Amino acid sequence: MKFNEFLNHLSNYEPGKDIEVIAKEYGVKEVIKLASNENPFGTPPKAIECLRQNANKAHLYPDDSMIELKSTLAQKYKVQNENIIIGAGSDQVIEFAIHAKLNSKNAFLQAGVTFAMYEIYAKQCGAKCYKTQSITHDLNEFKKLYEAHKDEIKLIFLCLPNNPLGECLDASEVTKFIKGVDEDCLVVIDAAYNEFASFKDSKKHLEPCELIKEFDNVLYLGTFSKLYGLGGLRIGYGIANANIISAFYKLRAPFNVSNLALKAAVAAINDDEFAKKTLENNFSQMELYKEFAKKYDIKIIDSYTNFITYFFDEKNSTDLSEKLLKKGIIIRNLKSYGLNAIRITIGTSYENEKFFTEFDKILR
Amino acid sequence: MKFNEFLNHLSNYEPGKDIEVIAKEYGVKEVIKLASNENPFGTPPKAIECLRQNANKAHLYPDDSMIELKSTLAQKYKVQNENIIIGAGSDQVIEFAIHAKLNSKNAFLQAGVTFAMYEIYAKQCGAKCYKTQSITHDLNEFKKLYEAHKDEIKLIFLCLPNNPLGECLDASEVTKFIKGVDEDCLVVIDAAYNEFASFKDSKKHLEPCELIKEFDNVLYLGTFSKLYGLGGLRIGYGIANANIISAFYKLRAPFNVSNLALKAAVAAINDDEFAKKTLENNFSQMELYKEFAKKYDIKIIDSYTNFITYFFDEKNSTDLSEKLLKKGIIIRNLKSYGLNAIRITIGTSYENEKFFTEFDKILR
Repeated sequence: MKFNEFLNHLSNYEPGKDIEVIAKEYGVKEVIKLASNENPFGTPPKAIECLRQNANKAHLYPDDSMIELKSTLAQKYKVQNENIIIGAGSDQVIEFAIHAKLNSKNAFLQAGVTFAMYEIYAKQCGAKCYKTQSITHDLNEFKKLYEAHKDEIKLIFLCLPNNPLGECLDASEVTKFIKGVDEDCLVVIDAAYNEFASFKDSKKHLEPCELIKEFDNVLYLGTFSKLYGLGGLRIGYGIANANIISAFYKLRAPFNVSNLALKAAVAAINDDEFAKKTLENNFSQMELYKEFAKKYDIKIIDSYTNFITYFFDEKNSTDLSEKLLKKGIIIRNLKSYGLNAIRITIGTSYENEKFFTEFDKILR
Repeated sequence: MKFNEFLNHLSNYEPGKDIEVIAKEYGVKEVIKLASNENPFGTPPKAIECLRQNANKAHLYPDDSMIELKSTLAQKYKVQNENIIIGAGSDQVIEFAIHAKLNSKNAFLQAGVTFAMYEIYAKQCGAKCYKTQSITHDLNEFKKLYEAHKDEIKLIFLCLPNNPLGECLDASEVTKFIKGVDEDCLVVIDAAYNEFASFKDSKKHLEPCELIKEFDNVLYLGTFSKLYGLGGLRIGYGIANANIISAFYKLRAPFNVSNLALKAAVAAINDDEFAKKTLENNFSQMELYKEFAKKYDIKIIDSYTNFITYFFDEKNSTDLSEKLLKKGIIIRNLKSYGLNAIRITIGTSYENEKFFTEFDKILR
């Protein structure tokens, strides 16, 4: 059977291995997963309670107006319901943006190393990818590339802070940059980890209501997968001008998010204690990762996220990842990003100690 | 801001109203929803238990290999894991099929009145829609239309049994028809309600392993939203030749189904008692709907599903739906399908009695 031509240019995504599968394969009793930037404290207690209470409603189709979560987000961010779209992860909103703006005749712009899914989704539309030489976000280079290919570039991704590297631009630099972007070019600000950056340094804080008031071409993306501890439920959101949201709605399948995810997300937003604990632990534990790096002369970039990236010169990241795996510790090898580096999620103090102990033995 | 041209031809989907919203709007205390063909017995007890036990794992990304559910389905249907793809509802697998096969230069074929999402998703690709004059599935007409537009038609939808009408073709007729279809044309058998049809009449039973053994161009779709009582969790599946599944995988976003849905689906498949109770209640209660129809001279089509469709001559379906709504009873008005008819989900005996009592008053 023949399929649409564009499928020929797509490759199959290879899923990572599950904790249980790895434990069995390597015969390790305890597996510590510091690979997917999940919340080390688990699911927020208020969300757990909400899920347990609503488990008997799994047969009912979701409220497709998503009014409860939209109103909660609208209040939190001081925007209107019409400025919000809910996705199955903010990933799905990235897909909407790409399908709405990109095609085989235009292009998008991104940092040298950033969230891999931008390129993967954009391939489905056959759009051209421009990326900066700099692996981190360098706005001068973004500007130069944009000016050189202005007619072609219809979408710009800014990952603030950047996954998988951890650096973050100041909010003031970002707004200055967007002022130079044509109104017909959509600027997607992927703020999946922005709560972490804002906590560490208020200059990194992005306020969606101000952004969309000033710019008709900005899309702000948030997720419940990181700070809010709901990665398994697939729920995120986009905030933008109502015209953009309305266009995305045309691409959205009805009931794109589960009813339990919608309910748990509201509970998670209201679990302030959990969020506070997560942020405080993250940056106090991050210090230990910095000290460890210093001790072993491992290069790092200052991280504004819930992970840290270790760059190596002589040692090989694939080899190191494999050795850690044998000890039951899963981290993210960044070889597929073209880097000799590993990305480690900041875990609980117990998990981090375990990592330091084992990695110490490996590096000696 | 301008968007891709094809968006101009798409309209925004208007979501239906939620039970709680309706109750408030109409000031009714008790709302009975017989509109979305959800399971009247709720969520399967084994799935509820599973959801409660796993509520504290909502922070972990799903196992993207989906090995546990795939193996469970592979065993149930006697197929290989490589023949299965899991979707966020079988809806998502319909989307994969459409995006893999259809484009603005080809066409698809469907019954006169059938599941609305086929046309809605296909519009995104700009494909032409051929439909039979007959509102129900008439294979002679399907054959004539297919033969007349063979070069154009690259996808055929068969909804067995048909939603929203309820009729069902015999499995033997279906295989005979598919033999006359070109191998490059994908035949999608939407079996969302097939467990109900099979229970009522074994001649309607479709066996995916036999279908995919005989035909390289058949996609069988199943869902957990109906018999298995998990409509809120958005989970369904497609079974086909490994080449078809592999093509669909290129279109699938990673983590397209939540981890709790994956786990609950396995629990639901194993809740035999719940499934048995659902099927038995459905067809014994269906008899009461038939008697009611006979009493009021309402035209029906024999239903092989968990709903029944009432056709009216003089009375107006919109007017009747509105009157029921005021009494707190939500059914599906089929006006948008071009029919003067309503579709009623077979509920519990309590819900059905309530419907009969109120509808009796309205019709008198």
